[in-house]
Amino acid sequence: MTAGALPDPVDAWLERRVLITGGLGFIGSTLARRLSDLGAAVTVIDNMMPSHGGHHFNLEGYSDRISVHLCDLRYSDSLEQLLEDQDLIFNMAGQTSHLDSMHDPDTDLSINVVAQLRLLECCRRKAPGARLVFASTRQLYGKPQYLPVDESHPVEPVDVNGINKLSAEMYHLLYAKVHGLSACVLRLTNTIGPRMRIRDARQTFLGIWVRRLLEGEAIEVWGGEQLRDFNDVDDVVDAMLLAASDRDLPAVPFNLGSSEVISLTDLARLMIQIHGAGELRITPYPEERKKIDIGDYYSCYDRFQAATGWQPKRSLSQSLERTLAYYKVNLPNYI
Amino acid sequence: MTAGALPDPVDAWLERRVLITGGLGFIGSTLARRLSDLGAAVTVIDNMMPSHGGHHFNLEGYSDRISVHLCDLRYSDSLEQLLEDQDLIFNMAGQTSHLDSMHDPDTDLSINVVAQLRLLECCRRKAPGARLVFASTRQLYGKPQYLPVDESHPVEPVDVNGINKLSAEMYHLLYAKVHGLSACVLRLTNTIGPRMRIRDARQTFLGIWVRRLLEGEAIEVWGGEQLRDFNDVDDVVDAMLLAASDRDLPAVPFNLGSSEVISLTDLARLMIQIHGAGELRITPYPEERKKIDIGDYYSCYDRFQAATGWQPKRSLSQSLERTLAYYKVNLPNYI
Repeated sequence: MTAGALPDPVDAWLERRVLITGGLGFIGSTLARRLSDLGAAVTVIDNMMPSHGGHHFNLEGYSDRISVHLCDLRYSDSLEQLLEDQDLIFNMAGQTSHLDSMHDPDTDLSINVVAQLRLLECCRRKAPGARLVFASTRQLYGKPQYLPVDESHPVEPVDVNGINKLSAEMYHLLYAKVHGLSACVLRLTNTIGPRMRIRDARQTFLGIWVRRLLEGEAIEVWGGEQLRDFNDVDDVVDAMLLAASDRDLPAVPFNLGSSEVISLTDLARLMIQIHGAGELRITPYPEERKKIDIGDYYSCYDRFQAATGWQPKRSLSQSLERTLAYYKVNLPNYI
Repeated sequence: MTAGALPDPVDAWLERRVLITGGLGFIGSTLARRLSDLGAAVTVIDNMMPSHGGHHFNLEGYSDRISVHLCDLRYSDSLEQLLEDQDLIFNMAGQTSHLDSMHDPDTDLSINVVAQLRLLECCRRKAPGARLVFASTRQLYGKPQYLPVDESHPVEPVDVNGINKLSAEMYHLLYAKVHGLSACVLRLTNTIGPRMRIRDARQTFLGIWVRRLLEGEAIEVWGGEQLRDFNDVDDVVDAMLLAASDRDLPAVPFNLGSSEVISLTDLARLMIQIHGAGELRITPYPEERKKIDIGDYYSCYDRFQAATGWQPKRSLSQSLERTLAYYKVNLPNYI
């Protein structure tokens, strides 16, 4: 197998039993569809919290192939049963809104930590041999002390969400070291693509920009000079599959990221250009968000590239194009 | 005021309203007694979990002066009421056993994180102007990459307890930065002295050594070569009072520690020498504990010394002497 290539679909995924938590969400559903296409036996769990990313339409057309369980990792009596005999577990469930984590820290803690610990304990009992991939976040680095941010960068979360995701990540790595689970942690940067939440800015600010653009309203850019990097969701799915395939990857965190870096203002302009119309309104950063803002951010993904050969294949323009095209058709299903 | 000196008792503590969580425990009760002696109006909260450090005898002689509330930070309906109008909050409550945190991670999470977040949220509402001092731990550094360990050392907890204490610490510092609470974090090393838990090794292994020695049984030393540093509980109380007095201390973690470093075998020998009798049995490190062992550890406390003038005043020998003397008299109350 060439470095960076995905394992041969037939060998690797056919009839593999895969569980995806948060599997009706943006990345989870994209992963579920891909794995199902590759022949895996996919089960997804989602609690369908209205403020999160879960959406039934995300698995449209797969209802005969993907088994969907609407349950909550924190409370479900079926969790152990669902985990039994799984070969792979992609743990994508989480609360992603930074601002919500500050307004309602208990819920963030409950979903991003309490539920995660329960999942790991159930894995120990019922799926000790499964490969486990955890979707972590660049948010736990906090305000970058240098750029691009690599995995040696100090971890200083600026909000409750970052603290809680850090805990969950540490649990995964601890359970690998002490209890022998086969776990891998990917720290995702901004991920974009079809099926992302566009109702509001809870998953990524870019979601609400897409909606505004398609509804003919001005895109509101806070500040505008901040630099960011973006991964297309299909590149993230590639990374997840590579991480799942290689049980020899060390149990350390790996950044995803992109070498394409762009300011928010330029990003908004690029989206307007691709869409062919639109308006941009730059406003001062809201006071409440300023307190938890991280300034410029982009990732160094050298460690993961060296270990697996992964690198993003979709350009930012391509990704924005196909995202806008998707929502032009499917907007009514997402608002 | 000289650097390192405590503020004038009459000016600083008289009639100050002080709340101590975990106030029937080892350090909490020592702090409560000191503050009461200094004229403060002390309230303590303790949930008296049998496996933790709380002990009614720890406040023997103070029942007319210290108000004791047996309640749990996680569930108490009175928490907001107890916090109202407090000038100072010493947050000492916690689960301390590393091994228990691995056997029952949910309870550790609940006590060391969920309860802490609840306390902070209540502080925001009912005591936003209070000074808050949080007792953190050296455990969150994990296995030292260099010695002595300073606050720039990477944070890589080797057990659930370390992960959870890190979360709680990060919450305190976040609430200081974002919500304007006046919070301070001290990372304690091994603390010893009268009133520590000696029934077993849940608080510190030295507790069970004291008990064995006084009961005429051999001290069991695991490994023996590991280096450690120890603070006398009165030095830790000094540090707590200094941290509470100076609201200008930056909201960053501060190590406590000692420049006296000793191997476990030498420590056991020193205790036997002070006691005048005793036996030492060196055994291999138990497999279960080896997985979460941190090897050699001692702290650099330069940052806190530079900021406050604090340094330990009690030698290890003095501390062991007075500890053994205390338990010679009070052993029946603690087993």
